[in-house]
Amino acid sequence: MTVSDRLYKLREKMKAQKLDVFLVPQGDEYQNEFVPDYLRRLQWLTNFSGSAGMAIIGLEHAIVLSDGRYSVQLRQEVDPSLYEVGDSVSESVSSWIKKRVKALSIGFDARLHSKNFIDQLQRDLSNTPLQFQALDKNLIDDIWQQEKTFEHESVVAFSDEIAGRSAQEKLKLLAGHLQTQGLDSFVITQLDSVAWMLNVRGRDVPHNPVILSKAILYANGRCDWFVEPQKLTPAIITLLKDFVSFYNEDECEKRISDLKDKKVGLDTLRSSLWYFNRLQECGAQIVPAKDPVIDIRACKTSQEIEGMRQAHIKDGVAMVRFLTALSELDVTQETEMSLDQRLLDQRRRDFDFRDTSFETICGWQDHGAIIHYRAIPQTAHNLSHTGVLLLDSGGQYKMGTTDITRTLGFGALSAEIKRNFTLVLKGHIALSMAQFPQGTTGAQLDILARQPLWQEGLDYAHGTGHGVGCYLSVHEEATSLSPRSKEAVKAGMVLSNEPGFYKEGHYGIRIENLILCVDTGQTYFDGRAKLAFETLTLCPYDRNLIDVDLLTRSELDWLNQYHKKVFDILSDFLNDSERRWLQDATQVL
Amino acid sequence: MTVSDRLYKLREKMKAQKLDVFLVPQGDEYQNEFVPDYLRRLQWLTNFSGSAGMAIIGLEHAIVLSDGRYSVQLRQEVDPSLYEVGDSVSESVSSWIKKRVKALSIGFDARLHSKNFIDQLQRDLSNTPLQFQALDKNLIDDIWQQEKTFEHESVVAFSDEIAGRSAQEKLKLLAGHLQTQGLDSFVITQLDSVAWMLNVRGRDVPHNPVILSKAILYANGRCDWFVEPQKLTPAIITLLKDFVSFYNEDECEKRISDLKDKKVGLDTLRSSLWYFNRLQECGAQIVPAKDPVIDIRACKTSQEIEGMRQAHIKDGVAMVRFLTALSELDVTQETEMSLDQRLLDQRRRDFDFRDTSFETICGWQDHGAIIHYRAIPQTAHNLSHTGVLLLDSGGQYKMGTTDITRTLGFGALSAEIKRNFTLVLKGHIALSMAQFPQGTTGAQLDILARQPLWQEGLDYAHGTGHGVGCYLSVHEEATSLSPRSKEAVKAGMVLSNEPGFYKEGHYGIRIENLILCVDTGQTYFDGRAKLAFETLTLCPYDRNLIDVDLLTRSELDWLNQYHKKVFDILSDFLNDSERRWLQDATQVL
Repeated sequence: MTVSDRLYKLREKMKAQKLDVFLVPQGDEYQNEFVPDYLRRLQWLTNFSGSAGMAIIGLEHAIVLSDGRYSVQLRQEVDPSLYEVGDSVSESVSSWIKKRVKALSIGFDARLHSKNFIDQLQRDLSNTPLQFQALDKNLIDDIWQQEKTFEHESVVAFSDEIAGRSAQEKLKLLAGHLQTQGLDSFVITQLDSVAWMLNVRGRDVPHNPVILSKAILYANGRCDWFVEPQKLTPAIITLLKDFVSFYNEDECEKRISDLKDKKVGLDTLRSSLWYFNRLQECGAQIVPAKDPVIDIRACKTSQEIEGMRQAHIKDGVAMVRFLTALSELDVTQETEMSLDQRLLDQRRRDFDFRDTSFETICGWQDHGAIIHYRAIPQTAHNLSHTGVLLLDSGGQYKMGTTDITRTLGFGALSAEIKRNFTLVLKGHIALSMAQFPQGTTGAQLDILARQPLWQEGLDYAHGTGHGVGCYLSVHEEATSLSPRSKEAVKAGMVLSNEPGFYKEGHYGIRIENLILCVDTGQTYFDGRAKLAFETLTLCPYDRNLIDVDLLTRSELDWLNQYHKKVFDILSDFLNDSERRWLQDATQVL
Repeated sequence: MTVSDRLYKLREKMKAQKLDVFLVPQGDEYQNEFVPDYLRRLQWLTNFSGSAGMAIIGLEHAIVLSDGRYSVQLRQEVDPSLYEVGDSVSESVSSWIKKRVKALSIGFDARLHSKNFIDQLQRDLSNTPLQFQALDKNLIDDIWQQEKTFEHESVVAFSDEIAGRSAQEKLKLLAGHLQTQGLDSFVITQLDSVAWMLNVRGRDVPHNPVILSKAILYANGRCDWFVEPQKLTPAIITLLKDFVSFYNEDECEKRISDLKDKKVGLDTLRSSLWYFNRLQECGAQIVPAKDPVIDIRACKTSQEIEGMRQAHIKDGVAMVRFLTALSELDVTQETEMSLDQRLLDQRRRDFDFRDTSFETICGWQDHGAIIHYRAIPQTAHNLSHTGVLLLDSGGQYKMGTTDITRTLGFGALSAEIKRNFTLVLKGHIALSMAQFPQGTTGAQLDILARQPLWQEGLDYAHGTGHGVGCYLSVHEEATSLSPRSKEAVKAGMVLSNEPGFYKEGHYGIRIENLILCVDTGQTYFDGRAKLAFETLTLCPYDRNLIDVDLLTRSELDWLNQYHKKVFDILSDFLNDSERRWLQDATQVL
């Protein structure tokens, strides 16, 4: 079937159901960052493979919307005779519908959209005659003979020793939370919340060891888990059966209907509209609330912290091996993709490595300035003797998750590049060194990383840091470090520290470590705990890019101490040539 | 009449009106920071003279509540046989009433309380049988034969040349604002808003050249001004009569009643409940909104900025003269109060000086650690050869307002004191040097001033900065620099920059300049303007307190440049000995 055939068949289905418009997002029912191929309905329909986007299908016109980072890809992948393409920031779903469609009825799959999105759309289109129809079945699924014959990957246990709490303890903790809020149950739809609370991991999607499934948590400490039985092993069942009831995924609707008259928590911001509608239909009393796992999970246990530290040693060894090899290579024979592969090969040498934690960003020169760049064979650069490489990558290890960016300079580089690298480094160090009372928010800390750049009129168009899970999502919800973050940074949170600078068409600079918020044991005058950051990532910065004259004494001291720590911890795991490379790379500056 | 007689008579009045509780706040109907003596009902009733507080009078029990800074004063001034005293943070009005009074009816003067306060109190007491009664007349006024025979001070014009906009232009600007919001009128109750929009100044209260009055603004650009006619001069009437209608203050109620069916803006957060009740009674459609003057006034015109710069030159000259004299004195013959007087004498030498902008805080040693300290004869310290003096003061000049704190070291001081002074100075300099994109909030910038202290486990229990008016309130609403401030700092705002450190029982350190937010003319990559601060205050820091080793090169450069600027600007206005003193004080460090 061609893409054109697919669109034709979809429109036939729409006509049969008297729909003038149908919405096709890239996201799946799990609202997960990484969507497996067999659930990428937008890609199936339009050939657009970007990670975020939405098609609006009218009977005559259609458009594929995505954000700025995919503007080139949209034009490359989408057939302009079938679809307009547009930027989701400048063109909203409602504005396009008003402009291009004489529409009376708009259909959508409630599993694929949040309540907020649909509510907002209804408000935006309230002065039109449009009727909204939440469909029971996605129109595309009827046409797409989905290849559901893939091998179900088995669920594995995440050991209590690394988690620091057993699944039963976690369920009890959460049950206490429900009781406090007067809730009978809570529908848990976030994949990493399910995996975290049951101490299980899977391989259903790339980069994130979650299991496509959902759960209902009860105030008595029990839990219903809706997961395909083929994924379960006898060991997992034995481990959980005393407090978990197992159901097929499609039994969720039935179990929800048993919640009539119950007070049921639902994270309406993060769950699809489908859950809200089912709970409403069955007569449950819906209490909108934040997924209770999020705040507990954000503050890692001491065992998780130990796991994260170990994972960062393993990842540091892989990085140093990669960098040693790179220093011995003829880089002109390398491409952005071959380097990605070489780094992956190094990570794979570790027995505990499971997967990359996201798609590597390896951008040479101008590609480095594209914040969410991903090299593809058609456009990947070859390296040359002179230039700047931005390398942002991470690993999933069985005891922790990593995320590291290093910017590497090759050949004779301009004073401007070194200056800008050093400004980014100053911000990165300022955040690393920050000490602050409990209650300090991400918005307050964010400015420490930006101030050296701001002084020079420079800035970066992204946050300074995001939460990171422990062998779980590399973008895990905690507070974030950004001008908009209103939540406090708490002891036990693992965050990224990744200021950057991007000169469009020329080069990109980003420096990223993961940092752990720690309680120093000291307090301020009013009893607030004094918090600080411990840097988890272990890998030297490229000294060729540092303009030492721009660093203060205390910045330089921090840098030298960090490099010493990297050498002291990693050198035992390295061979002679790697150790020599690291010794050079971590010489006192 | 003794205080005991007054309380007895008040209770008689309460019984006559069948009230079980009556509330007596220190504040007056103008919600003004500085309450004139003849409106201080709490002081008349209880002898408590602190600037903030509230008495709750039951028929048998009574209490005077104030905040922590007045805990000593409460015990000194209030007769314990008549009143309990309490801390307004730990004891709320509602909790005391519940505990101590069998109350059925609570009376209050709606002119003296905000709607928010009364609403909150009603909520807090909603599970009691208490009835709230807003009284038409304050019970105290019947007893207190108020000395209304004081001289009315004349209103004077604030010149258009300094304001940068005529009153008529300001009223047009505000009328446009009302039209945009679909309002017919706006009741302006803030004293500094009235003074600002009519370009008038007065002497009705100390420290703040406002006129006790109020106004109604109309969408056609006209304005009703409710002000005692004795305060008006023919010149003022001539200046304003084309667009202002003059009324006695007590005619306000009548004019409000003419607003039936009109859409009327009222700043319910900042206005007393009396206005809300009157508007509601007459059938106006009340639209709660922020006083429209606040945001416009916060960003000074170029003429106001010039006025502020001039005022700071005058104030800098007074400070340098004072400091020169101090260096030649036998300080052991001085007290906190005599120094206050000496500084006032220097300020008064300037023909344009009108008043201090607040009550000077002059705290020697442990008194410096009391954030809102005010020296009184009974407790004022004598200075000695060794110690630390905190001196926070300001002036009202006819073209601008100043607010400056310098901490002065005498004799041989410990390394600890110098270190802590220098940490405060580092934060003060970091904020002075900050450059940032438009949209950056006070909460983001605040951390720059705190970070050097936070690193060492130190902090201060107050915001870093507040807005300042132009020959108007020294605490003027703009954004503030504090962890809670969510509003952006904008070009034209004048803010204080005053980090500190307080060692209770030992000494206090605070360093304060006023800073002006300026647009540098440069932009960031996305077009946001690059903003920075220009320091307005001109006075050297005490070099004896600076530990130069703790400063970075760029901090030291800033300091030396600032000192050079102070010398260059002020030296022309000084005599030889003053110039010599300043030359020494501003030598390169």
